[in-house]
Amino acid sequence: MRPLQLIALPGLPMVQAGDDLAALILATGITPRPDDVLVLAQKIVSKAEGREVRLLDVTPGPRAEELARETGKDARIVELILQESVRVVRARPNLIITQHRLGHTMANAGIDQSNVMQDGDERALLLPLDPDASAAALSARLGCPIVISDSFGRAWRRGTVGVAIGCAGLPALVDLRGKPDLFGRELHVTLTGFADEIAAAAGLLMGQAAEGMPAVLLRGLRWSAPACPATELVRPAQEDLFR
Amino acid sequence: MRPLQLIALPGLPMVQAGDDLAALILATGITPRPDDVLVLAQKIVSKAEGREVRLLDVTPGPRAEELARETGKDARIVELILQESVRVVRARPNLIITQHRLGHTMANAGIDQSNVMQDGDERALLLPLDPDASAAALSARLGCPIVISDSFGRAWRRGTVGVAIGCAGLPALVDLRGKPDLFGRELHVTLTGFADEIAAAAGLLMGQAAEGMPAVLLRGLRWSAPACPATELVRPAQEDLFR
Repeated sequence: MRPLQLIALPGLPMVQAGDDLAALILATGITPRPDDVLVLAQKIVSKAEGREVRLLDVTPGPRAEELARETGKDARIVELILQESVRVVRARPNLIITQHRLGHTMANAGIDQSNVMQDGDERALLLPLDPDASAAALSARLGCPIVISDSFGRAWRRGTVGVAIGCAGLPALVDLRGKPDLFGRELHVTLTGFADEIAAAAGLLMGQAAEGMPAVLLRGLRWSAPACPATELVRPAQEDLFR
Repeated sequence: MRPLQLIALPGLPMVQAGDDLAALILATGITPRPDDVLVLAQKIVSKAEGREVRLLDVTPGPRAEELARETGKDARIVELILQESVRVVRARPNLIITQHRLGHTMANAGIDQSNVMQDGDERALLLPLDPDASAAALSARLGCPIVISDSFGRAWRRGTVGVAIGCAGLPALVDLRGKPDLFGRELHVTLTGFADEIAAAAGLLMGQAAEGMPAVLLRGLRWSAPACPATELVRPAQEDLFR
């Protein structure tokens, strides 16, 4: 069995709004092969798509002001969180867990203030408008499957891990139900979060601090399931026991 | 930056109770280097440790009988789940989520009936008694860091992903808090589930069906945080918003 290789793309410059991300990636000198998978941190996709918001331009509504008092968070950030979400799941000091409009249940609607350039004014970075569509567009340009990853906390486990918020050209979810196990018994629960495992693997190289590597190539990964988007990873409301 | 390689160990035989797992691994011909990380599926560690239970030997108590009626599950399995757990978090038809005695909140206390040999009688496989200790013992024998992985479902995401239930010789959790981000701002939430990301990465090669590969070597992974066990990944009760 061939090894699976993960390669952090060197030399990717700081991404700015309006940048042609596919061109920046090709300029690193590493050209993805059609059977590679390229994982891109949400941050650089959002930046290229101009999803940065100046906090000066945000006016918190009454609901944001109230939630800001409850959590001790900046009311303008809370306003952005509410705008990006369909409902608040939990709120505690310094933590707001919502269901994002994309379906993901996550902290602070994925809005990040770290690593966002501030020239006098503060900025926040929102998730891409449609990460599956962003992944599809990048996949078409780069000629390989794409995963757009973010770091999520978990309900019962400490520490964040990489998850897929967008993907194209590969199955977000692999359904092994019905395949026999080693003794011919049918496997019961065998739906695997394939794109999430890819994002977590890339997270091992991405890091989050000064030496961050926002693009990681996987070479040698194999699968046989049909492609499906990252929205398939969202557990439907009727299956959600922790709303 | 050197690539990270993941290599599934070929030719590992079916593991039986009492087997010397370290010896079986060395017999594959792949000798781990001191800076490799070896990920082992919980299943083979549990088997070697004799954690298989014959269902014939299990007598369900009244609480197990009641929960079995509620969920439609085998009362003997439910009895084992209760014995292995400190509390039931949610119960629904065909699903019991408990907090395992090891601290993990998970489905069915990690008890698996698939891939467990049945010679006339049915068997279930429990988690190792102390997976961090199992990892430490294997690490001492094999001379490299060890992660013992299992596949967990998630509260709000479909599909299982690999997580670490035991580890030795590496940090289960990496705390980047206080390290400056690209613009010198202090990062806020930067505790990463390092061992969970390792387990998820290995999950890409392990699969779960007939062609399952229960041992995966990572070569080229770097870290600088001190080692800590997988129990550190369990969110303490006072931080748990989804009990």
